[in-house]
Amino acid sequence: MPKSFRKVAQKAGMPPGSLIYLGKKEHLPAKITIIQYRDADFVENEYDAFNQCLPLDHREGVTWINVNGISQVQNLEQVGSCFNIHPLVLEDILDLEQRPKIEDYEDYLYIVLKTISYTPEAEEVEGEQVSLILGPHYVISFHEGNDDLFAPIRERLFRGKGRIRKLGADYLAYAIIDLIVDNYFVALETFSDKVEFLEDEVVIRPTPQTLREVHRFKNDMIMLRKSLWPLREVIARLERRESPLISDNLTLYLKDVYDHTIIAIEEVETYRDILAGMLDIYLSSMSNRLNEIMKVLTIIATIFMPLTFITSLYGMNFKNMPELKWHYGYYGTVVVMGLIAVAMLWYFRRKNWI
Amino acid sequence: MPKSFRKVAQKAGMPPGSLIYLGKKEHLPAKITIIQYRDADFVENEYDAFNQCLPLDHREGVTWINVNGISQVQNLEQVGSCFNIHPLVLEDILDLEQRPKIEDYEDYLYIVLKTISYTPEAEEVEGEQVSLILGPHYVISFHEGNDDLFAPIRERLFRGKGRIRKLGADYLAYAIIDLIVDNYFVALETFSDKVEFLEDEVVIRPTPQTLREVHRFKNDMIMLRKSLWPLREVIARLERRESPLISDNLTLYLKDVYDHTIIAIEEVETYRDILAGMLDIYLSSMSNRLNEIMKVLTIIATIFMPLTFITSLYGMNFKNMPELKWHYGYYGTVVVMGLIAVAMLWYFRRKNWI
Amino acid sequence: MPKSFRKVAQKAGMPPGSLIYLGKKEHLPAKITIIQYRDADFVENEYDAFNQCLPLDHREGVTWINVNGISQVQNLEQVGSCFNIHPLVLEDILDLEQRPKIEDYEDYLYIVLKTISYTPEAEEVEGEQVSLILGPHYVISFHEGNDDLFAPIRERLFRGKGRIRKLGADYLAYAIIDLIVDNYFVALETFSDKVEFLEDEVVIRPTPQTLREVHRFKNDMIMLRKSLWPLREVIARLERRESPLISDNLTLYLKDVYDHTIIAIEEVETYRDILAGMLDIYLSSMSNRLNEIMKVLTIIATIFMPLTFITSLYGMNFKNMPELKWHYGYYGTVVVMGLIAVAMLWYFRRKNWI
Amino acid sequence: MPKSFRKVAQKAGMPPGSLIYLGKKEHLPAKITIIQYRDADFVENEYDAFNQCLPLDHREGVTWINVNGISQVQNLEQVGSCFNIHPLVLEDILDLEQRPKIEDYEDYLYIVLKTISYTPEAEEVEGEQVSLILGPHYVISFHEGNDDLFAPIRERLFRGKGRIRKLGADYLAYAIIDLIVDNYFVALETFSDKVEFLEDEVVIRPTPQTLREVHRFKNDMIMLRKSLWPLREVIARLERRESPLISDNLTLYLKDVYDHTIIAIEEVETYRDILAGMLDIYLSSMSNRLNEIMKVLTIIATIFMPLTFITSLYGMNFKNMPELKWHYGYYGTVVVMGLIAVAMLWYFRRKNWI
Amino acid sequence: MPKSFRKVAQKAGMPPGSLIYLGKKEHLPAKITIIQYRDADFVENEYDAFNQCLPLDHREGVTWINVNGISQVQNLEQVGSCFNIHPLVLEDILDLEQRPKIEDYEDYLYIVLKTISYTPEAEEVEGEQVSLILGPHYVISFHEGNDDLFAPIRERLFRGKGRIRKLGADYLAYAIIDLIVDNYFVALETFSDKVEFLEDEVVIRPTPQTLREVHRFKNDMIMLRKSLWPLREVIARLERRESPLISDNLTLYLKDVYDHTIIAIEEVETYRDILAGMLDIYLSSMSNRLNEIMKVLTIIATIFMPLTFITSLYGMNFKNMPELKWHYGYYGTVVVMGLIAVAMLWYFRRKNWI
Repeated sequence: MPKSFRKVAQKAGMPPGSLIYLGKKEHLPAKITIIQYRDADFVENEYDAFNQCLPLDHREGVTWINVNGISQVQNLEQVGSCFNIHPLVLEDILDLEQRPKIEDYEDYLYIVLKTISYTPEAEEVEGEQVSLILGPHYVISFHEGNDDLFAPIRERLFRGKGRIRKLGADYLAYAIIDLIVDNYFVALETFSDKVEFLEDEVVIRPTPQTLREVHRFKNDMIMLRKSLWPLREVIARLERRESPLISDNLTLYLKDVYDHTIIAIEEVETYRDILAGMLDIYLSSMSNRLNEIMKVLTIIATIFMPLTFITSLYGMNFKNMPELKWHYGYYGTVVVMGLIAVAMLWYFRRKNWI
Repeated sequence: MPKSFRKVAQKAGMPPGSLIYLGKKEHLPAKITIIQYRDADFVENEYDAFNQCLPLDHREGVTWINVNGISQVQNLEQVGSCFNIHPLVLEDILDLEQRPKIEDYEDYLYIVLKTISYTPEAEEVEGEQVSLILGPHYVISFHEGNDDLFAPIRERLFRGKGRIRKLGADYLAYAIIDLIVDNYFVALETFSDKVEFLEDEVVIRPTPQTLREVHRFKNDMIMLRKSLWPLREVIARLERRESPLISDNLTLYLKDVYDHTIIAIEEVETYRDILAGMLDIYLSSMSNRLNEIMKVLTIIATIFMPLTFITSLYGMNFKNMPELKWHYGYYGTVVVMGLIAVAMLWYFRRKNWI
Repeated sequence: MPKSFRKVAQKAGMPPGSLIYLGKKEHLPAKITIIQYRDADFVENEYDAFNQCLPLDHREGVTWINVNGISQVQNLEQVGSCFNIHPLVLEDILDLEQRPKIEDYEDYLYIVLKTISYTPEAEEVEGEQVSLILGPHYVISFHEGNDDLFAPIRERLFRGKGRIRKLGADYLAYAIIDLIVDNYFVALETFSDKVEFLEDEVVIRPTPQTLREVHRFKNDMIMLRKSLWPLREVIARLERRESPLISDNLTLYLKDVYDHTIIAIEEVETYRDILAGMLDIYLSSMSNRLNEIMKVLTIIATIFMPLTFITSLYGMNFKNMPELKWHYGYYGTVVVMGLIAVAMLWYFRRKNWI
Repeated sequence: MPKSFRKVAQKAGMPPGSLIYLGKKEHLPAKITIIQYRDADFVENEYDAFNQCLPLDHREGVTWINVNGISQVQNLEQVGSCFNIHPLVLEDILDLEQRPKIEDYEDYLYIVLKTISYTPEAEEVEGEQVSLILGPHYVISFHEGNDDLFAPIRERLFRGKGRIRKLGADYLAYAIIDLIVDNYFVALETFSDKVEFLEDEVVIRPTPQTLREVHRFKNDMIMLRKSLWPLREVIARLERRESPLISDNLTLYLKDVYDHTIIAIEEVETYRDILAGMLDIYLSSMSNRLNEIMKVLTIIATIFMPLTFITSLYGMNFKNMPELKWHYGYYGTVVVMGLIAVAMLWYFRRKNWI
Repeated sequence: MPKSFRKVAQKAGMPPGSLIYLGKKEHLPAKITIIQYRDADFVENEYDAFNQCLPLDHREGVTWINVNGISQVQNLEQVGSCFNIHPLVLEDILDLEQRPKIEDYEDYLYIVLKTISYTPEAEEVEGEQVSLILGPHYVISFHEGNDDLFAPIRERLFRGKGRIRKLGADYLAYAIIDLIVDNYFVALETFSDKVEFLEDEVVIRPTPQTLREVHRFKNDMIMLRKSLWPLREVIARLERRESPLISDNLTLYLKDVYDHTIIAIEEVETYRDILAGMLDIYLSSMSNRLNEIMKVLTIIATIFMPLTFITSLYGMNFKNMPELKWHYGYYGTVVVMGLIAVAMLWYFRRKNWI
């Protein structure tokens, strides 16, 4: 279950704009990667702190500052003062429980995103918040976790593959968003296998464990939905190009990511429907099993109770019980009991119980 | 369950516009049919590859290029360069897990559709993606599967029946869309019979198998709905005639297909409601059966337990048990037991259990 | 279950505008009634075929052509050519599985309606499609079934009661729509009684049969809803008076029918809620009954199992069992067993089981 | 269950505007109260019929005609001709199954309202229709039932308390609407107690009777909702002051009633949620009880079946059974049986069954 | 369950604007705190009654009048006449069952808010109504309960921390709203722990008690939702800055609170989903347990009934039963019974019952 308000609660009554790190990864050291690229050049530098403003010359092309590990608040403060970023934005970057959103500060766009990863071992969906600041010739990205997240984009920039180096900072922001949306599909693919497996499970050999997994998946879907819907809104707003920071030739690409987000949302909704259906299947197969159990009990009881009554009858110690003295009394009784048993079995057969 | 994101996941981090076939039918050879027709003429040629641009003379009437089997990417590239088609469109044609959509590229419209077929043997709904490119005097259609899909339209073109040869490329596109919508009805008709059969089944002799089929149908309905809703949007946008490629006299026909789509959607929703109702019926007939089983058990136990107690009573070996010596003790006991059994049966009769 | 797509499926791949009768009543002969009326006059003629166009003189007042039984396509073709009706309209008239809709063809309005009748014997809701063509001085109505449908309106026209003869063709169309909406209320009234009966049934003596009826009613409600919602839209569009064929003084009347449609829709939704509630009641009374049955079983078993154990104990054949030789051993045992039985009964009493 | 369409069905096929009383209280005599008031004056007269138009002099202040008991149609006709009221309005006043609505006839507003009363003895919600005609200097109110409904307003008018005498006819109409909305709260308060009682009941000692009451409450809520939603719309339209008959200084008061209606609607929705939750509680406590019952049965059977088997074993009549001759055979057997019983009890204890 | 209409019902029929205290805390004495602050100054005075209007000089900065305990109506009347507040506003302040709302009276804004507190001991959510009057240079706040509510803001004002002293009365109002929204997060955090605990509980050892808690939580969520949704609307309206009383530089801060409200609403909806899922888990684990119980019963019965039948068979007293005289008859019988028991156990093993 998400704890998204844990930390907000801690700050109750504090003035807005206080820069306090609200995440869980205080121990992670900061790693700041500054990439500057043009069609022809590509320079990558790595720092462990952000000490001074670097002069941004837009003739140098696009600058991408990636801040990895944000528990050291001073880095953020420095970035804030260099790029003249509003204190509330800085506060939001540190509050790792934001919903995906986009805010237009005229000089730059502030975009909050949630990337998702599903670790099959832990069987848990983990979300990580990515904050983007998109200025005219720069992108600043902040995230808490490990460095590998943006590796494919750095790779593409390095190799100069595709359009990425020829286009501006907005295209870089798009590439980051596209990567994040694709990560949802990676998680959904893993789910897909799990759900198919559970579907067989629930039909063939349902156990309480199966049900618990269905339940956990449902909660995962609730969580995915919670980050996908606002993500859709963010991309829709970018696509509408309300800000001059987004150039015209990006529209088609944004439409494409938008379509992907819709597909992801539909998948999540489909899974929700399918998981809800599984629960019904589970409950009805439980009641089916109960019926099976009760049939066994009833058949056994219905056959042996009358028989035991008869044997018990001739176990009575009355003096005057003529049958007891009959020569074939015992054999006759056994035959009668056999007939009763056969009749019962025939009755159950006819009722389709056996 | 649809795997619509399988392949998107594979492409995570790759630059957009990479032409990679994302379908499951790599082995199918390409078959390219080029039909050119006017009111008076009809020419059909078939190729196994698309090697060179053919000169399109609009005085020649309408050209319909049907590309069947799209796993050979080079055909697509050739078509793309001949007709000057945007790389993202080509990428989407190859990605067979699109939602139905329409995109206006000014020179042409790009339309993605999903046709559906229900194979009663496999008892499975299969969807196939059809991509249309509608230009001023040409239609290019792409689909993965077998060639028979458009046979009725080729037939109508060949025979010159109806309006089809007199009207333009937009009418041809309409005819293709109409055919695809009609295919939904063919599938829904098969469902209709199945659902009626299941409805009887669930009331008369419900088995876990019945429930599983209800469940599978529900999932099929989820899938149909997922392709019908965006299809409706596509047709609605065509009907609004935002593009000059759609002529005025097509509006009435498009309205007609639109109405059909609405009817199909309503049917699907109706089936969903009916199938949900069936599940309730199933569960309650399970609990009904359990009641029946328990009644049998209770009746048997309630009759034989007291009787066996009495016989057991007179099976005790106490020295001083005067009844045992009574001459009619045994007969009296049997009569008493008979009365008890009758009383029990009368009690159950009154309770409406038997 | 409605088969609304049955026939659409049959036409898959055929060109639009093909006139093929898609109903189930091929055997019904056509009956064409032509009524011409003004404030002062009323002329009614009946034909068995529509052979020639009759000259429409609007000084003659309003002409109402009612075509009853539409399986003979030639009548329709004749009407179509006389009144210059679009082929798609004629096709829709023959396709009896339309949704209620209104289409504005400038010269005339084409209105599709669904009238409903509930036959208590067959316990089935039957819908019938009524198509109206409303021109400036004429109304043409088509329906498949029996002639009695419009009897009340013919009666009012004949007697000259109310405003009907004084006002134009639009008022006649309104009167037909009003009649059709009223028919829903006749059906709903029958339902009302049935639902009340079922509600008692489900509480007092629920049987699987009750459940089946609840299920059937739910499906009926789904069907009613499917025709009422678009009917509401049709009337709303008429009320907005987008067409000059609807005169101003009709607004109030249309508002009135509109209100009735809303009430009918609300009733249907209310029934759906109530029927859903009944299912819950049914399931819980099933589980209540199971509890009752199990209580009986448990009481019997709990009383007789210990007693039978005791008797069985003293039925053992051990040589050395001193109790057996006690003079009051037997009587003592019986008294002990009596006390055990009383204790058990007291226990169940305290547990509120008996 | 509401019979709102009962009477509409009776009128199927009749021309609109026919004045027929459609209520259930034909026996109630009419009572017409005419109140005329200004800031300084207050005159109240009572009649048993409305025989002649009284001259309305607006310098006389506001005139309030309250018609109580509307089964005598002639009164209505007289009112209709005096105040020049549209026949459809008169028809609607008599049709007591209207939804709350407002209609603007320029000279006057026609407002239909539903007042509600909950009689705890009959445990039934009863609705009564109130029709208002608001003219420039008069209000005409019609209702079927008893006279006490408007007593508080007459009281306030008589005593001259508050703003009521100083303001116009629109304020009087507002006062009536306010009173009606307040009546919903009186009913909701009674419900509140009942629901709280039921909530305890369902948790502590659920009986089928409890369930039946939950079901009845749910139906009551469906009914309340049906009259509250359109009531909200009516007040919202009044508040928007589309008619010049509503003066500016009424807006704040209308906003106030509007807020109250919203609160009432929210309460009803809350009750629906709570009652739905109760059903779940009921069902699960039923299944809980079943578990309890089955535990008792299983414990008894599991303890006594093995014991009875042992006693039965030594009740066999084999010649050669050495144990029977052992001196302590009997005592040993009893001890063994005691140990078995204790083991069983320990097992059930560990399983948390006892 | 909220009693929000309790008191409204008491006022049924009374004229609007009557000042009557409708809360539950009549005994609380009033405590009026008047704080005046500018960037440099801060003056705080406390009174037990509001006796005379204090002259508001806006050069003095912002004045904050906090009225704590509102059961003494005369204080309110005095405030009303000093600040020229509409009687309906005063009435609403006393009616403690308002929904959160905002009303624009041009000279001032009237804002109703609900603050929430969750007391873990009582395990109950308690709401308290806070009314704000925001004028150009003053804020008047009214609340019923204890004084500590606004302590953090008074603290910040006193210490002069952050922007609070530099900005105007609108910022103070924002600070109060922000505090109230943060209080929801404090409550949600407590819930979060409880829900996680319940989730484990329901899976591992579900008891009827667990279910009752799930039910209570669901009702709490219904209540939270009821105050959060209108709160969202209030903040949205403030953010749109329809009133000149809200200055431009507040927008960003209001957007921030707005985002928090959205997160709170999403949490509540997530909890509702999760709690609904728990109920399903509960029901299915109940039915799982029943299956377990029935398996034990069936296994015991199925093993011992045939065995007891056999022993009972040889307990019969027939004269002619040759087996009884066999030397190894007894031992043979015991062996046969052992084999039967083993066979049964093997059967249950294979069926996965044990």
